[in-house]
Amino acid sequence: MDYQSHFESAIEALHAEKRYRVFADLERIVGRFPTAIWRHENEAREITVWCSNDYLGMGQHPDVLQAMTNAATSMGSGAGGTRNISGTNHPLVELERELADLHGKEAALVFTSGFVSNEASISTIAKLLPDCLIFSDELNHASMIEGVRKSGSRKHVFRHNDVQHLEELLKAADPERPKLIVFESVYSMDGDIAPIAEICDLADRYNAMTYIDEVHAVGMYGERGAGICEREGVAHRLDVIEGTLAKAFGVLGGYIAGSRALVDAVRSYAPGFIFTTALPPALAAAAVASIRHLKQSQSERHGQQRQAARAKAEFSAADLPVMPSETHIVPVLVGNAELCKQASDRLLQVHGIYIQPINYPTVPRGTERLRITPTPLHDDALIAVLRDALVETWTALGIPFASTRPTHEERREDVTSLVVAQAGG
Amino acid sequence: MDYQSHFESAIEALHAEKRYRVFADLERIVGRFPTAIWRHENEAREITVWCSNDYLGMGQHPDVLQAMTNAATSMGSGAGGTRNISGTNHPLVELERELADLHGKEAALVFTSGFVSNEASISTIAKLLPDCLIFSDELNHASMIEGVRKSGSRKHVFRHNDVQHLEELLKAADPERPKLIVFESVYSMDGDIAPIAEICDLADRYNAMTYIDEVHAVGMYGERGAGICEREGVAHRLDVIEGTLAKAFGVLGGYIAGSRALVDAVRSYAPGFIFTTALPPALAAAAVASIRHLKQSQSERHGQQRQAARAKAEFSAADLPVMPSETHIVPVLVGNAELCKQASDRLLQVHGIYIQPINYPTVPRGTERLRITPTPLHDDALIAVLRDALVETWTALGIPFASTRPTHEERREDVTSLVVAQAGG
Ligand SMILES: Cc1ncc(COP(=O)(O)O)c(C=O)c1O
Ligand SMILES: Cc1ncc(COP(=O)(O)O)c(C=O)c1O
Repeated sequence: MDYQSHFESAIEALHAEKRYRVFADLERIVGRFPTAIWRHENEAREITVWCSNDYLGMGQHPDVLQAMTNAATSMGSGAGGTRNISGTNHPLVELERELADLHGKEAALVFTSGFVSNEASISTIAKLLPDCLIFSDELNHASMIEGVRKSGSRKHVFRHNDVQHLEELLKAADPERPKLIVFESVYSMDGDIAPIAEICDLADRYNAMTYIDEVHAVGMYGERGAGICEREGVAHRLDVIEGTLAKAFGVLGGYIAGSRALVDAVRSYAPGFIFTTALPPALAAAAVASIRHLKQSQSERHGQQRQAARAKAEFSAADLPVMPSETHIVPVLVGNAELCKQASDRLLQVHGIYIQPINYPTVPRGTERLRITPTPLHDDALIAVLRDALVETWTALGIPFASTRPTHEERREDVTSLVVAQAGG
Repeated sequence: MDYQSHFESAIEALHAEKRYRVFADLERIVGRFPTAIWRHENEAREITVWCSNDYLGMGQHPDVLQAMTNAATSMGSGAGGTRNISGTNHPLVELERELADLHGKEAALVFTSGFVSNEASISTIAKLLPDCLIFSDELNHASMIEGVRKSGSRKHVFRHNDVQHLEELLKAADPERPKLIVFESVYSMDGDIAPIAEICDLADRYNAMTYIDEVHAVGMYGERGAGICEREGVAHRLDVIEGTLAKAFGVLGGYIAGSRALVDAVRSYAPGFIFTTALPPALAAAAVASIRHLKQSQSERHGQQRQAARAKAEFSAADLPVMPSETHIVPVLVGNAELCKQASDRLLQVHGIYIQPINYPTVPRGTERLRITPTPLHDDALIAVLRDALVETWTALGIPFASTRPTHEERREDVTSLVVAQAGG
């Protein structure tokens, strides 16, 4: 048996499809966000990062860094054990309180990542409900899909943000069976938002539980940064709100917030929570500082919205194919995996701008894109530089501009139906 | 549908079985390891931790803390994205090089935890091999079991460390099918060691791949701290070596090391690696410092072995039922979930000593225990204090001493056969 050849051919397949990924080796610089050092072929060069999920620059906020270094200096670099085996550090206990308060829930539970929080919580919740049916948005994130799979529950996939389709599926289901609707608030690749209140209405009508992923919204929406549910005044209607500490909060880790009993059950039954070392106190302390800051301060949120709107306007005015987005996410359509990779490479090599290509399976084939995330720290001058660099790149590579291609909606419809099964990553 | 009641009764079931877990709220103190502050009912009290998996105290080593705070101060608190989406930070690139070198492999890949590294790698490797058969030790850790399950592969469970049973299963299998043997080097609840060379012999004979979890060995065994495989000179015979950065290295994160093609395939195909924020640069830098220190220094390893041997000798001399262990792990048998919890509570409340109870499903029912982990920093005086506290507790609660109970082996045999299906956590 030549094992090596299987792995080699798996890699070959990616090269052939032009979706082999090369990770840029980056070193971010505190105080100079969004600048980073890019190391490549024994050269180190300063570049501008335009695709960070440190959406508000909180990963370099002085309060956050201070909390982190203080906790590391006084409590050490690691937790030293699983939550049960001496790893429940005091900052983590405080963090869970802070998160429960943020979302107005009885309790919260922290995991090592948002990925693990989704996988572990969805699977555990569904397993604890006898014969549970899961209703899952077709564009849900890979971590939610893994959670649904792991639950072993029967699942119904509803068309993206389509409440009518969701209702049909709920109506057709046995009224006696427990039901769990899993969806996101902000879909990170398109920047669109779920009809949360309408989904909650359906959950009430058909007696289903609701589980929402607010990973791309926490810190950024709502008066205290609790997400889209807060902004729309519906947080109390959701059974579980899931989020990450690794994007707008700038640190690492994930969590759920919900009722005391539900959170305690996940805490007590989820292998992905139980059998792993707890988050280090330094990260928990940093996250607490970040959440507390964003509970009070609006300037980061306002700055982000302002710069995102400006970027969309500038790019559209330059005839770049900006995809429709209701949020801070600014996707620009390329529509081809190889061109997408080339555009990214050219931006980096020629313009010193880093935006990684987003190809299948993260998005459906045919909708390959550059996904741009303006932060409050990407100022107007940087936006102008990026606009010009994009126009140069689009021209040099022959990528269609907005006025020279079929609309996104037309293309999207073609493609979506083909890829429903694999989407969501 | 009363959803809440399902979660409440799931919790009730744990209370009824006396295995509901309460996490101690601990704050470790740099410079005063193994002392921590225990917060309980509005009181804060200094206690001694005797069950940390920060096995060598590296979580408070000055070089490690310096590396962590330096990186946080200069590069920020988080990675800011997935590995592909601008999250590949330079310290992480260095860490992967360091780990490949540590294990003498072509490449290494870092995950957010050891749990995720096992789950993602085992499932992905097995999925990439057509029709793969997995051979899994019955006491494998929960994260490995999750990886095996997620692969969807056919699995054969072999009796713990039983090469004869493994050979029977290999011999009976179709010679044409790919085969993967997954096992641990040090089993963390009993402290025994796998017959690695013999398992590699079988792998050669039956043309199987080998995947070893060295989570409870890395940093602690071998001339450079690469684990039991290094100590026994067999590292080159293993296809994949998996480890954690969160135990002896004192930080957070997990990894695999192996051939370039295998590592690249896992990197390219594993959802648990791809769709999650990368480890922060501060943690990667801390881990690099810890690994480098332990590559050179023997004093932590020697100190740990010396104090573990002393603890075993002292406890045995006091007639405490120390379970047989070939390693730094010192399990003391209680044999009953409720008594185990009571012993732990009494040690904490009366003696200011923290050792959490280890109950089912982490260990088979009937083998509930206190699992004690002496480090180089638990000195002779602390060992004497612990011995006396254990004797007092055993006496007060009426837990059988070594001379007053059936031997561990006798009990173990009874129990193991019943719990094979659930073991491994
Ligand atoms: C919608 C969604 N949920 C969950 C996650 C996982 O969060 P984390 O990066 O904290 O693992 C991501 C991205 O990483 C995401 O996009
Ligand atoms: C054998 C084994 N493998 C893997 C893990 C998971 O490692 P981590 O704590 O880094 O998730 C553990 C314990 O946590 C373990 O005991």
